[in-house]
Amino acid sequence: MSDGTPVPSVLLGASGWIGQHFSRLLADHPYFAPPVLTGAKSAGRTLEQVWQLSDLPVPAALADRRLERLSAAQIAQRGLRVAFSALPSDEAGPMETELARRGVSVFSNASSHRMDPRVPLVVPEVNGDHLKLLGAPRRRAAGGQTRRGFIVTNSNCSTAGLVLPVAPLLGLLRPRAVHVATYQALSGAGFPGVPSLAIGDNLLPFIRDEEEKMSTETGKILGRVAGGRVHPLELPVSAQCVRVATREGHLEAITLVLPSSLRVTPEEIVDAWESYRPLSADPGAGGGLPTAPERPVIYRPEEDRPQPLRDRWAGRPERARGMAVSVGRLRVAPGTMRFFSLSHNAVRGGAGGSVLNAELAYRQGYLG
Amino acid sequence: MSDGTPVPSVLLGASGWIGQHFSRLLADHPYFAPPVLTGAKSAGRTLEQVWQLSDLPVPAALADRRLERLSAAQIAQRGLRVAFSALPSDEAGPMETELARRGVSVFSNASSHRMDPRVPLVVPEVNGDHLKLLGAPRRRAAGGQTRRGFIVTNSNCSTAGLVLPVAPLLGLLRPRAVHVATYQALSGAGFPGVPSLAIGDNLLPFIRDEEEKMSTETGKILGRVAGGRVHPLELPVSAQCVRVATREGHLEAITLVLPSSLRVTPEEIVDAWESYRPLSADPGAGGGLPTAPERPVIYRPEEDRPQPLRDRWAGRPERARGMAVSVGRLRVAPGTMRFFSLSHNAVRGGAGGSVLNAELAYRQGYLG
Amino acid sequence: MSDGTPVPSVLLGASGWIGQHFSRLLADHPYFAPPVLTGAKSAGRTLEQVWQLSDLPVPAALADRRLERLSAAQIAQRGLRVAFSALPSDEAGPMETELARRGVSVFSNASSHRMDPRVPLVVPEVNGDHLKLLGAPRRRAAGGQTRRGFIVTNSNCSTAGLVLPVAPLLGLLRPRAVHVATYQALSGAGFPGVPSLAIGDNLLPFIRDEEEKMSTETGKILGRVAGGRVHPLELPVSAQCVRVATREGHLEAITLVLPSSLRVTPEEIVDAWESYRPLSADPGAGGGLPTAPERPVIYRPEEDRPQPLRDRWAGRPERARGMAVSVGRLRVAPGTMRFFSLSHNAVRGGAGGSVLNAELAYRQGYLG
Amino acid sequence: MSDGTPVPSVLLGASGWIGQHFSRLLADHPYFAPPVLTGAKSAGRTLEQVWQLSDLPVPAALADRRLERLSAAQIAQRGLRVAFSALPSDEAGPMETELARRGVSVFSNASSHRMDPRVPLVVPEVNGDHLKLLGAPRRRAAGGQTRRGFIVTNSNCSTAGLVLPVAPLLGLLRPRAVHVATYQALSGAGFPGVPSLAIGDNLLPFIRDEEEKMSTETGKILGRVAGGRVHPLELPVSAQCVRVATREGHLEAITLVLPSSLRVTPEEIVDAWESYRPLSADPGAGGGLPTAPERPVIYRPEEDRPQPLRDRWAGRPERARGMAVSVGRLRVAPGTMRFFSLSHNAVRGGAGGSVLNAELAYRQGYLG
Repeated sequence: MSDGTPVPSVLLGASGWIGQHFSRLLADHPYFAPPVLTGAKSAGRTLEQVWQLSDLPVPAALADRRLERLSAAQIAQRGLRVAFSALPSDEAGPMETELARRGVSVFSNASSHRMDPRVPLVVPEVNGDHLKLLGAPRRRAAGGQTRRGFIVTNSNCSTAGLVLPVAPLLGLLRPRAVHVATYQALSGAGFPGVPSLAIGDNLLPFIRDEEEKMSTETGKILGRVAGGRVHPLELPVSAQCVRVATREGHLEAITLVLPSSLRVTPEEIVDAWESYRPLSADPGAGGGLPTAPERPVIYRPEEDRPQPLRDRWAGRPERARGMAVSVGRLRVAPGTMRFFSLSHNAVRGGAGGSVLNAELAYRQGYLG
Repeated sequence: MSDGTPVPSVLLGASGWIGQHFSRLLADHPYFAPPVLTGAKSAGRTLEQVWQLSDLPVPAALADRRLERLSAAQIAQRGLRVAFSALPSDEAGPMETELARRGVSVFSNASSHRMDPRVPLVVPEVNGDHLKLLGAPRRRAAGGQTRRGFIVTNSNCSTAGLVLPVAPLLGLLRPRAVHVATYQALSGAGFPGVPSLAIGDNLLPFIRDEEEKMSTETGKILGRVAGGRVHPLELPVSAQCVRVATREGHLEAITLVLPSSLRVTPEEIVDAWESYRPLSADPGAGGGLPTAPERPVIYRPEEDRPQPLRDRWAGRPERARGMAVSVGRLRVAPGTMRFFSLSHNAVRGGAGGSVLNAELAYRQGYLG
Repeated sequence: MSDGTPVPSVLLGASGWIGQHFSRLLADHPYFAPPVLTGAKSAGRTLEQVWQLSDLPVPAALADRRLERLSAAQIAQRGLRVAFSALPSDEAGPMETELARRGVSVFSNASSHRMDPRVPLVVPEVNGDHLKLLGAPRRRAAGGQTRRGFIVTNSNCSTAGLVLPVAPLLGLLRPRAVHVATYQALSGAGFPGVPSLAIGDNLLPFIRDEEEKMSTETGKILGRVAGGRVHPLELPVSAQCVRVATREGHLEAITLVLPSSLRVTPEEIVDAWESYRPLSADPGAGGGLPTAPERPVIYRPEEDRPQPLRDRWAGRPERARGMAVSVGRLRVAPGTMRFFSLSHNAVRGGAGGSVLNAELAYRQGYLG
Repeated sequence: MSDGTPVPSVLLGASGWIGQHFSRLLADHPYFAPPVLTGAKSAGRTLEQVWQLSDLPVPAALADRRLERLSAAQIAQRGLRVAFSALPSDEAGPMETELARRGVSVFSNASSHRMDPRVPLVVPEVNGDHLKLLGAPRRRAAGGQTRRGFIVTNSNCSTAGLVLPVAPLLGLLRPRAVHVATYQALSGAGFPGVPSLAIGDNLLPFIRDEEEKMSTETGKILGRVAGGRVHPLELPVSAQCVRVATREGHLEAITLVLPSSLRVTPEEIVDAWESYRPLSADPGAGGGLPTAPERPVIYRPEEDRPQPLRDRWAGRPERARGMAVSVGRLRVAPGTMRFFSLSHNAVRGGAGGSVLNAELAYRQGYLG
């Protein structure tokens, strides 16, 4: 573990939607120093000048910081040991690889490396143990000069809202298949993203590559590590993804197909969700991470929840707002159970996911 | 069949959203005279004065007609032989029963009598034959003085968008179960309906009784008539219903669970949809109904269709606009197939459904 | 002034939109005890159960408090000395009068008594001195048994966003007339308020009585007290009020007609706004009120501000969020100047306005 | 006048929002042949493939026509004598000049040449006589080989909604100044235009150059031609322009400052609007133009009109839908009168404006 000095960091792609959520979370973080900001097109402008999250305040500590145009070499030379990446996929691939090669540890929201079987794709509560793909922490801590960088990715935004409530049920329900229909917020497409004329009074039943990501990423996250790579869980996930005109918060209508012989009560399912505390159960493995919510899955008993407007910022303590997934409208029938899930796509399903990954890596000694 | 004189009719509940769609469709109808309009709270005001369908013109032939407050006895006494009902459910139950008792034939959008096994719940292309629950047409035509009324209902708005594209596939796919998630327009809740503050930047994952209706109505419509009642098809339908901020047009994400041994290609499915012409195949049984669309199910090959804004008014000829269901994004996987459906909730799933039912009854001699 | 014990208070109409904003502001207030909550239709339910401000948290201190149905007599008997009124106008008139008669001091958002020339209509920064209509504070403090209640009202929501930026300019510009066009948020109509089908893809250029209120209230607020009544300023205000589909925050396009001979620079106007600190200039008269913003008028130099989403919560310190008015796009031409104003209709233009009035009255000894 | 053969035409910029409205209006026009379509980025695709007006049908006659990339020389060589221009301003300037030089008559929606004092900026009902800037029609018709092209522009979208209802009142009211605040629809910014994340739950009080256009264009349109150029009317127009989240239809809150001595009744004003028939009054000068509405200004007496959703398509006959301006909420006070105006920004304020200009030029022999 670290000596307590905040780790110098860089935020790649600070002018985008996810980048700006990163900036909120990192402006005043106990493990990481306020990040250097990069942005190709907006270099020279301050964070305040490029701020797009209209309903959230610009973080005071970074408001006047100017975005820079930095190469991987420059980042490494400036001693920025951790990079948070909100780059678009086409830029993220080579940049992140180059940063890792130069000894920088990358926590990325980009999809470029997510399905590389040697790159951890991590939702800490679910598969924090996948970090062992990075090797033994101790050896890494031994000498700065031999330190190698690595890449750890968070999941796609819609995947996060699926695996978090499904993971606690795997043992109880042994599902055979998952059907999911999504109601995805505008910010999932970034800024400028979806034209107002395309989505006003409308729905767009297509998000490129999204359905495939929900399927393959879920398998990988729920898989197990062996022989230096991830072996995905075999669980068919069939998704139907739709863009809707909400700002933030992805709603998902989830159906699990169960073994026909299974008998389960709603109470057992609710109990599995409410007692799900994988991080706090093992503090040494991550308990008490600053951005981890006390309860990662919150069950709402009301007849009309969860809703984006009411539930997207779920999560305590204050630093973990937007990191909890809210579930509700649970119904159990012979052979199936179904429910709704609501998660903040840009926090739990984006910037917050990678910040939590970085906190876990920090606590486990991978940044030592 | 009739002698060609338009049948005198009444429209119950002309001040509501569905009522006003009825008024559009009936203002200039070849079988039915422009209807007398009723409305309890708005009696004395003209249709133009209570008009709520802001983006559609008031039908000229009815614009100045005043709404009246009429009892079932008055309706029967005025010789109004056909009633179109857009009443709210709590009023519809007793009123429709009383009208039928007095010899008026009721075509209703209300849910009150839909699940009565002796009342036809009809989507003409799918189960027009259920009208035989009403008895033999010929006997009915024999003498005006012995004429008895009856009730025929259309389906719930979201059911219409499900059964129309599923019906043509039953033989081909032999589905074992249906999973459906809906994206239902505001007008499904009528006017004033959903408060703007409740739905702006939000989604409401609850519509009272809607999921149950989709399940039970689908079984009844796809069932068969025997012994004077309907025997529902046993096909589990599990629905998850969500209100979204579109004006009109329900989108549905539909998954059919298929026999594991079944092999089917997308082309076979598309062909089943595109060749589906149940009414025109048998003109005597309804072919050429004025409000029937040439093609009840329209397959859209684009990667991002169907959409409410683009597809809700699908259907030809002009009188059948909004009566076709658009489907798209078909994907076939082992054991499942899935697609999106888009239907106009207030036309095919509401007023237009009952108008089409009345046309079918007229052509089959039930109004003789 | 008080002895520091929080004054027992009641919140009338806690189930409505403004009522719930009151509850947020009063749940943890230094002068007033957490209020007893009343609500006629929702009596028996907790604040959490009736919560409508979907994007704001229920105040923890009041979440479980149940709404009660209380008469004026009961309120007085329970020793609740201050009433905050979020009642609808038709209920507010007699109830507030009766409360005042029984010795309760009423701070009201309702319009019922606003234009009574003996009732102070107060925006503290602008006309805090109008409280002298209530008589001499000292005499009031003399003996509890002779204490009489009174009514103080805040302005209409759209008036607040007009008078706050106009007041600092009166001396500099000597305007002859004011033209204002408004862009008013949905919450100004309360809940359920505007139907989503009426406002989606639409604008409603009519809000009953609103234009008249903007004219008469502005005159009264900018007027002077003499002879125990308010003598309004003679300044023609012609308003055109429009409802738009935003949740909160009223935008106003304001034009001042200036004396033709007047010469003024934009810099002078900006300086008049930025130096406007009427409360802090005279602490004894209200400086340091908990809900008063450091700067009541904030000038935005950007080319596209103020905006509802970005500026509605303007105001510091934390307790004064939503209490500052943001202005921008100032343009000066011969004979006119124009600008945009943005204010939180439910905070500065509603609950916050009355809370600030109550703080001023408290500090000036009227609640002693 | 023409011999009745439809004039070969080209539509420049068919892939944009205004371009597609042009295509609707020209697909089946009595004077002009269905246009050749150009589009730089979309060349090779059919109109149907690039269609963006989601709630309007693609015109059947042009649906399969492919967009081409054509130079001014190619257009002239192909004998396309009339060009309708929906080009963006930066492309329109040189292209339109070049076309005119080569003998093509250009009817343009672009702002590039609008304020050139020798280029007619025309709203036919208001200043159709400005076409005389083009010279004597007869001489032009004399010989095809000497024919020169020209440019005629329509006004900015928001200007159209202002000058049409103001023009009929000039003589009656002799206004000294105009104040206008706008509520402008998304389509005014074209496609993709305004990002959904920027305008959802928001208002944008800035549209580049819009306020200046409303002022200078109004002066020019209401001006008079003398000495081969336009002499603008001196009437100060101060505008405040705001983008709102409606699809189509600009609402404007208009105030006219009147001579202090003027006495006028609302009835006189309404009468001036309702009796305004400048084109039909002089058929030879344009009466009976196909796209001209019977009544260019429609007064709505309801308390809450005009509204975008209800009134944007005002205008008869069918071909003139969207060409009438609706006004309402008239209020007269000493020294001022005010009202709301609603016009279809893409029809009357865009494509339809230029089509009407071309019809006028055709009928007056300028295209002979």
